[in-house]
Amino acid sequence: MSHVISIIGAGSWGTALAIHLSKKGYQVYLWHRSEEFIKVLKYSRENKKYLPGVLLPENILLTSDLEECITRSNIVILAVPSQKIREISKRISFCLKPSQILVNVAKGIENDTLLRMSEVIYQEIPYNEVIVLSGPSHAEEVAKNIPTTVVVTGKNKETTELIQDIFLSPTFRVYTNPDIIGVELGGALKNVIALAAGVSDGLGYGDNSKAGLITRGIVEISRLGHAMGACVSTFAGLSGLGDLIVTCTSMHSRNRRAGIELGRGNKLENILKNIGMVVEGVATTSAAYQLAQKYDIEMPITSELYQVLYHNKNAKESVDTLMLRNKTNEMEQLTVPYYKNW
Amino acid sequence: MSHVISIIGAGSWGTALAIHLSKKGYQVYLWHRSEEFIKVLKYSRENKKYLPGVLLPENILLTSDLEECITRSNIVILAVPSQKIREISKRISFCLKPSQILVNVAKGIENDTLLRMSEVIYQEIPYNEVIVLSGPSHAEEVAKNIPTTVVVTGKNKETTELIQDIFLSPTFRVYTNPDIIGVELGGALKNVIALAAGVSDGLGYGDNSKAGLITRGIVEISRLGHAMGACVSTFAGLSGLGDLIVTCTSMHSRNRRAGIELGRGNKLENILKNIGMVVEGVATTSAAYQLAQKYDIEMPITSELYQVLYHNKNAKESVDTLMLRNKTNEMEQLTVPYYKNW
Repeated sequence: MSHVISIIGAGSWGTALAIHLSKKGYQVYLWHRSEEFIKVLKYSRENKKYLPGVLLPENILLTSDLEECITRSNIVILAVPSQKIREISKRISFCLKPSQILVNVAKGIENDTLLRMSEVIYQEIPYNEVIVLSGPSHAEEVAKNIPTTVVVTGKNKETTELIQDIFLSPTFRVYTNPDIIGVELGGALKNVIALAAGVSDGLGYGDNSKAGLITRGIVEISRLGHAMGACVSTFAGLSGLGDLIVTCTSMHSRNRRAGIELGRGNKLENILKNIGMVVEGVATTSAAYQLAQKYDIEMPITSELYQVLYHNKNAKESVDTLMLRNKTNEMEQLTVPYYKNW
Repeated sequence: MSHVISIIGAGSWGTALAIHLSKKGYQVYLWHRSEEFIKVLKYSRENKKYLPGVLLPENILLTSDLEECITRSNIVILAVPSQKIREISKRISFCLKPSQILVNVAKGIENDTLLRMSEVIYQEIPYNEVIVLSGPSHAEEVAKNIPTTVVVTGKNKETTELIQDIFLSPTFRVYTNPDIIGVELGGALKNVIALAAGVSDGLGYGDNSKAGLITRGIVEISRLGHAMGACVSTFAGLSGLGDLIVTCTSMHSRNRRAGIELGRGNKLENILKNIGMVVEGVATTSAAYQLAQKYDIEMPITSELYQVLYHNKNAKESVDTLMLRNKTNEMEQLTVPYYKNW
């Protein structure tokens, strides 16, 4: 079957996916709200702002006409910042038919409602299937055919496998996973730990420190996720751990870069101004902090980062707080202690 | 209680632990087999060969007299390369009293027997308790007081907690874990994946690729570990995942550096000659490959690396093999599929 795919949002990830799918031979629309921006893209065939250095293949149709591209597609990919997902869902809900499949690639938690992205989309578009794609996938590398592995998840197995097939290529390996809650939470919450890992780097700490942070980070993410109904082992997979690792170790990560600047003592508002793109982890830290309180889950790294971001706590003091907590057993803190030897 | 601690092996890790423990005020002996080498250390108070740039505090006693330091200590730390553990255990077994506690920090699997390090030690020294210390802890950083988190494990809880107390400091956080099998296997097998991650870097692949490798790597390590009696969640902890991350992302890692050279097309024997220290992952890959066959476990990354190391398979072909395997469900491959939604 030949598919027509609309990608809503021409940031770095939307653009990279447009390139990837167009190379597979699909008819791809890439949408951006600004007619001006689309004009520039059409002329230069390069997204200089968000994905410089990569040519947009000729079979990507660039448009700022939302209704036109939606009505011509059978698959619609949402690639806007997480806090814009509700607004864009509202807008496209009027021109969607129930047979069209939505694929969300935005990672975050809605600030006020604390809902996952697919929950937000289902509230606005209740009759369409929503598939989620997540995993360690920097746009810059996907656009250059560098080997990448991701996960797709959704309520319906057949539709999830259809999306798996559509995205699959020799350099883009796609796994399925039935745990939509875990996949979405992993993708959102890893940005919190990436900010913290950046802080550690910015303070001049080492690889040991960061590996500890990442490991203890996935433990607290798993703990919250379990309470919210996710499967703990999803967090050990590509959309949890995998994405966390890439976000904490790559200079492509805006969250990590923002953290580094924080660790060096720079002010959050200046850092965000300089980066000039959305740093998802800042809003997510607040959401994660609220979720931890709501579900009564201990999340030491998230709490400390929340204090640093929102209450000007000194970053070095925060690390000291984490290192000096009561000594403990590694396993007692895991949510599924199915090994009891003592 | 005041402890006297002997550290057997003055490589980078033994030396860093000597520095760490002497700073805590313990009487520490650091042993090396060569009288000549000890003389140089005594004179320069710096281990230029294995840990350059760090001063050895005056309260570290340097010695090449094994019997003397063993008989004066109540705690003996084994910090020799994994394939030397049996030999050194044999040697010290004659002068040990059963009350002395052994702490092993070597990470590997014995080549011919496929035994874990503590199993090897217990064969040679059956009447002493063996505690294992593992986790993401590059010597270079520990010696400089950079925040580090590790795990200790052993058959007896009280002794394990005693060792936790001895090592604990504001920059060295120690967790306990009762799963000695899992802690030891994680520390050994991560070197296989670190070699593979290096190969990926050496081939010019990206952060996405490496994050995928690490994530799928911990999955296959967990699968083997589960078959061998370990607890799967240990591999998600500091001694599994944590150590894997630091080994795959740090330039301090000899295993990763060897992998990078392999990926660039250099010959194994030349690489090992240039590094000049033991690259544990090379022997461990062979052991892991044999264990996978013995327990009939699918370990695609280990198998491919084994072909590259021991049968001259082209590294790029190996990556292609991994990327092009049958499409699959991420969760079906986990050993504990306690989430079944479909």
